[in-house]
Order: sequence, then C-alpha cells, then structure tokens
Amino acid sequence: MSLNGTYDAGNPFALIIAGKIPATKLYEDEHVLAFLDIQPQSKGHALVISKWSKARNILEIESEALAQVMAVVQKVAVAISKALKPDGLHIAQFNGAPAGQTVFHLHVHIVPRWEGQAVGFAAHGQGQVADADALAALADEIRAQL
Amino acid sequence: MSLNGTYDAGNPFALIIAGKIPATKLYEDEHVLAFLDIQPQSKGHALVISKWSKARNILEIESEALAQVMAVVQKVAVAISKALKPDGLHIAQFNGAPAGQTVFHLHVHIVPRWEGQAVGFAAHGQGQVADADALAALADEIRAQL
Repeated sequence: MSLNGTYDAGNPFALIIAGKIPATKLYEDEHVLAFLDIQPQSKGHALVISKWSKARNILEIESEALAQVMAVVQKVAVAISKALKPDGLHIAQFNGAPAGQTVFHLHVHIVPRWEGQAVGFAAHGQGQVADADALAALADEIRAQL
Repeated sequence: MSLNGTYDAGNPFALIIAGKIPATKLYEDEHVLAFLDIQPQSKGHALVISKWSKARNILEIESEALAQVMAVVQKVAVAISKALKPDGLHIAQFNGAPAGQTVFHLHVHIVPRWEGQAVGFAAHGQGQVADADALAALADEIRAQL
C-alpha cells in the first residue's frame, strides 16, 4: 500500500475504536484514544489515534482531528515522562508502507528512550507481543500521571 | 543533554529564526517556519519549527505553538507529496539526545520515503551536507505546490 488508497473499516485500530478488539487504554475522550502498543519498541510505547477521522495518513486527516490527536500526544508524553522517567521520547508518525506504516488509520507513536538503547525503529510485526498483564500494570502507572 | 535543561538562545534554529544564519525556506508565517534540512535523510527532508516558542521539546512546548507547528507540518507534507511524489512520508520529532535530538529547539522532521530505500533514521551529524544550489532548486519545486 502506498499513500493512495481507501480507508479499510476493518483495520485493527477501527476495531479497537468500535470495541471489537481490546486495547490497553491510557486516555480516551470524545475525539481521541491513546493506548499501549502490543509490540512495543520500548517500555511505555504508546499510540494515539483519532476516533472519528477516517484518514489513513497525514495527507488526508482533517486539520481539527490532527490538532486533537497532537494535543493528546503531548498530554500522554508528559504522563509517560513523569511515570517512567525516560531519557528521551521519540514521536513518530509513518505514512505509507515504504515509510514503515502497517496499520492504515493515522496514528502517532510515542516511544520512550533510555541512554544506551538503540534509537532505531524495528520493523513492526517483527517485535515481540507484550504480556497483557505487564501492559495493564504499565498503563496504571502512566494513567496515574494523567 | 536530556529532557531537562534550559533553552540555549544560540542554537542553530534560533539563529535561523533571527536571520543570523541562512536556511532554504519552504514556508514562513508569523508563527512558524519550514525549511530544508542541510543534512537530508532523503530528497526533500524538511523541518518545521515555531518562531516564538522557546521550547526544547514536546514536554515544554505551549499547546498553541504545537498546534501551529503541526498545521504547517501537514501543509508542507502535502506540498512535498505533490512535488516529489514519494511513496511514503516519515514524520518524526525527537526529544532528548538519547532519542536522537541534536538541536534543542523543538522541530518536526518530514522525511519523504521511496520504495526500496532504507526506512531508518541515520544519526544526525553523520549525513552529508547537501549542495546549497540543489536545495534551492528543490525548495522551488516544493514551494510551487504550497
């Protein structure tokens, strides 16, 4: 898939929004949802998505939806920083498979970084799926700072 | 440098905003500036910064400044997409040296990607400095789509 195409209403994030598959939620309001990535690049790797925009990427998303998403990215980044005290935070948003996008519902990654760890972004689908209980405990820590 | 620290008014992006060092500008308004990276990760690699916020990172930036920056990121991403027709776009924002940040004035990277090219982010300072005339020609192509 490239930057062109149509929105697939059956993509995993649409199913999370619809409540058809579970997610370890960090924050939710009328417009935006933040949850932990099940194949984390690092401890506390979170994703932020619009609940109403059917945009696949940054070329398509409504400016209001993008603003809503980014406000929550900042809010969650601050909470992650307080809870986990990382040395850095990598914010990333991939558009198109050649840029590393694997789910075609616009999403922003928040990846905590620690000194001495690699800063690259491992290809998605190659990462290990995190233990659900460990993610739930981590989410509690982060939500306590929101 | 980590996520904590004070803003250095002599950082390269502050000097660009002040007109003390040159930049190949793509877009500028009262609040935001977009220009081409002089050590591009790929053809068309652009940076977007707030002209008024003295934030080093996403933990510090005023919500209004972040919204202004992201609106221009989208605008410039669309123009780059029209001008250069990449297969993907990687949007990245690094906070703290362990996350890859080298200039401590918040900035968002827009990196066009093409099929078959690496999707990683080479360490800054290791990239080749681009030819100024080539960057100027590229900026003309992108600005024509704004």
